[in-house]
Amino acid sequence: MRSPISQQITTIRPSGIRRFFDLVSEMKDAVSLGVGEPDFDTPWHIRDEGIHSLDIGRTFYTSNAGLKELKEEICKYLDRHYGLKYEPSDETLVTVGGSEAIDIAMRAMTDPGDEIIIPQPSYVSYEPCAILAGGKPVIIELKEENEFRLTKRELLDAITDKTKILVMPFPNNPTGAIMEKEDLEEIAKVCIEKDIFVLSDEIYSALTYKGEHISIASIPGMRERTVVINGFSKSHAMTGWRLGYACGPKVIIEQMLKIHQFAIMCAPTTSQYAAVEALRAGDEDVENMRQEYDGRRRFLMHRFRQMGLKCFEPFGAFYVFPSIQQFNMSSEEFAEELLKSQKVAVVPGTAFGDCGEGFLRISYAYSLDALKVALDRMEAFIKELNK
Amino acid sequence: MRSPISQQITTIRPSGIRRFFDLVSEMKDAVSLGVGEPDFDTPWHIRDEGIHSLDIGRTFYTSNAGLKELKEEICKYLDRHYGLKYEPSDETLVTVGGSEAIDIAMRAMTDPGDEIIIPQPSYVSYEPCAILAGGKPVIIELKEENEFRLTKRELLDAITDKTKILVMPFPNNPTGAIMEKEDLEEIAKVCIEKDIFVLSDEIYSALTYKGEHISIASIPGMRERTVVINGFSKSHAMTGWRLGYACGPKVIIEQMLKIHQFAIMCAPTTSQYAAVEALRAGDEDVENMRQEYDGRRRFLMHRFRQMGLKCFEPFGAFYVFPSIQQFNMSSEEFAEELLKSQKVAVVPGTAFGDCGEGFLRISYAYSLDALKVALDRMEAFIKELNK
Repeated sequence: MRSPISQQITTIRPSGIRRFFDLVSEMKDAVSLGVGEPDFDTPWHIRDEGIHSLDIGRTFYTSNAGLKELKEEICKYLDRHYGLKYEPSDETLVTVGGSEAIDIAMRAMTDPGDEIIIPQPSYVSYEPCAILAGGKPVIIELKEENEFRLTKRELLDAITDKTKILVMPFPNNPTGAIMEKEDLEEIAKVCIEKDIFVLSDEIYSALTYKGEHISIASIPGMRERTVVINGFSKSHAMTGWRLGYACGPKVIIEQMLKIHQFAIMCAPTTSQYAAVEALRAGDEDVENMRQEYDGRRRFLMHRFRQMGLKCFEPFGAFYVFPSIQQFNMSSEEFAEELLKSQKVAVVPGTAFGDCGEGFLRISYAYSLDALKVALDRMEAFIKELNK
Repeated sequence: MRSPISQQITTIRPSGIRRFFDLVSEMKDAVSLGVGEPDFDTPWHIRDEGIHSLDIGRTFYTSNAGLKELKEEICKYLDRHYGLKYEPSDETLVTVGGSEAIDIAMRAMTDPGDEIIIPQPSYVSYEPCAILAGGKPVIIELKEENEFRLTKRELLDAITDKTKILVMPFPNNPTGAIMEKEDLEEIAKVCIEKDIFVLSDEIYSALTYKGEHISIASIPGMRERTVVINGFSKSHAMTGWRLGYACGPKVIIEQMLKIHQFAIMCAPTTSQYAAVEALRAGDEDVENMRQEYDGRRRFLMHRFRQMGLKCFEPFGAFYVFPSIQQFNMSSEEFAEELLKSQKVAVVPGTAFGDCGEGFLRISYAYSLDALKVALDRMEAFIKELNK
């Protein structure tokens, strides 16, 4: 029997996060700072709406693009917070998390050989989705000295006449980096001049700690060349509901809808009704969680300084990305040793791209108590190393 | 600005069902026999489990491949009903409906130019998903004289040295056709001899009206070359929950899992917990619904005979596929006229492939009362035509 699988799929590596967590799951008493999802349960009033929706028998398909009232609330939310204006009817698509939106955006926009620029370290899906869509990923290695922001120079150096899409992963997982208005304006200029499109993954947009998030789609000239991806997982602690969305020019969204219609049908119905409630009455929950995350972020930065661990101050998402270059170990070695000797799980920076070497991703989507235990153990580990 | 969309995506037509229902939605008092989803609410005990799951805060991601207990129940169910034996740990993948499973199976198995054989009339997703995966769809036009079953001869004629996958869409949407054991054995022989793989979409397997459904994977020699796709939408009236699964050889499932992990992350958590309950205690619900559908099916066949509408007797799913060739109108014309003059909505057979010309898809996922009203109107329409 010949091989049933395609040649291409074998070239794609499984997620490095997962590989590492197989180790963790085998260990008792390990404290994990590894997971990329909120530690909060979904707020009660949102769950209540989901429950009500099941109670009254809303167990059917919705229309392919999503509930009309949800699309309307999404557009109001994006306008209210980021000044983005989209039509609910044909510029908005409700998806199975931000993940599906990333995948189908690339599938809708990529012809074979098109280059897709992916700044790294960044979320593990961009590169495989680009390859699966027939595109060629072109990696930009972001630099700590730039606080892991994307610079105009870096972008210009990566652009060729095959470049079609730039992925903008800010606020960033794993570095916590954000892009401020002036940074985005520089990037926007290049995109317009070089006629390239932007896939802006703003799933952490609600979690910034230095002014409000700015969407690149709000920079003049960018709306028509940007697909904004967002969702409920991080902002509203709704990971398990699998609900996200994409907004962009009709010409792109209608093609994404076609793929979504054939490959997914519609996003889960219960989740869609709950999400309407999340957008109508959830801003306060989001703000409360954001403040809680911010407290933890400050605590971590403080403890890192105390223990002599270098870390640029991140202003987004719920990750810090300390450097471990001073210890002369690879990220993977450091993470494995830390796990073995102190039973603290963090993710090696290399899980998010080769240029993550020398760094660790530490999530603060954990209670302060858990963070304290973990940081005490990390401090002991580092003392041992410095001996 | 250049075009943001890929050349390939523009070649894919949106679903013909949708185009037709845009017409319906604009019409008041229309009776629809058009929709492809159960008219039953999800059974209470299943909804209760979903509600409980939200109550106790299960709002987080599950593991990528799905909850362990769900995968175990899926394997028990497939064994109990169809004698299929799969490993929960590495031969089972929980997906966002059968739709996602179809899409990622094709993506995992198709190299550029691979031919994917698709018997039609059949569900609207196979052809676009094949194209999006880089494959070349090869259509087999099923014949009414064969009760829309796939024959060995038809399959042999379609196979070339580029053939990689055969899609087996039985019980069939839209024709209601099933494949019995002897039919499948003939097909299996060819697949083994020609070394081709099978994507067996068995989403309607619980709804057959002539003996139990037989899975092609249960034919000797087929398990290792078949991906079985199934789910909860049709059997358990759970469309809105968006939950399905794929079972097959580890070598294929592990590649599908990779795509699923990057493009979807995991299926919705609430739905997964509810589905465990559906499999543990839902067999009786399924049987009750099946009997109800069967009564409606018999009623429709009886009325068709009375009004002189030719229709082969279908033994699966919840569709009948009457011929309207005697009226010298295209399927689309017939459906539009029927809608305009009698306000009854049915789907033109051509929505499921060109060879659906001359047929209509009529869903009996509607109450007997609704069916009676609709059939009276159809009878009046036909009388008018026969004048």
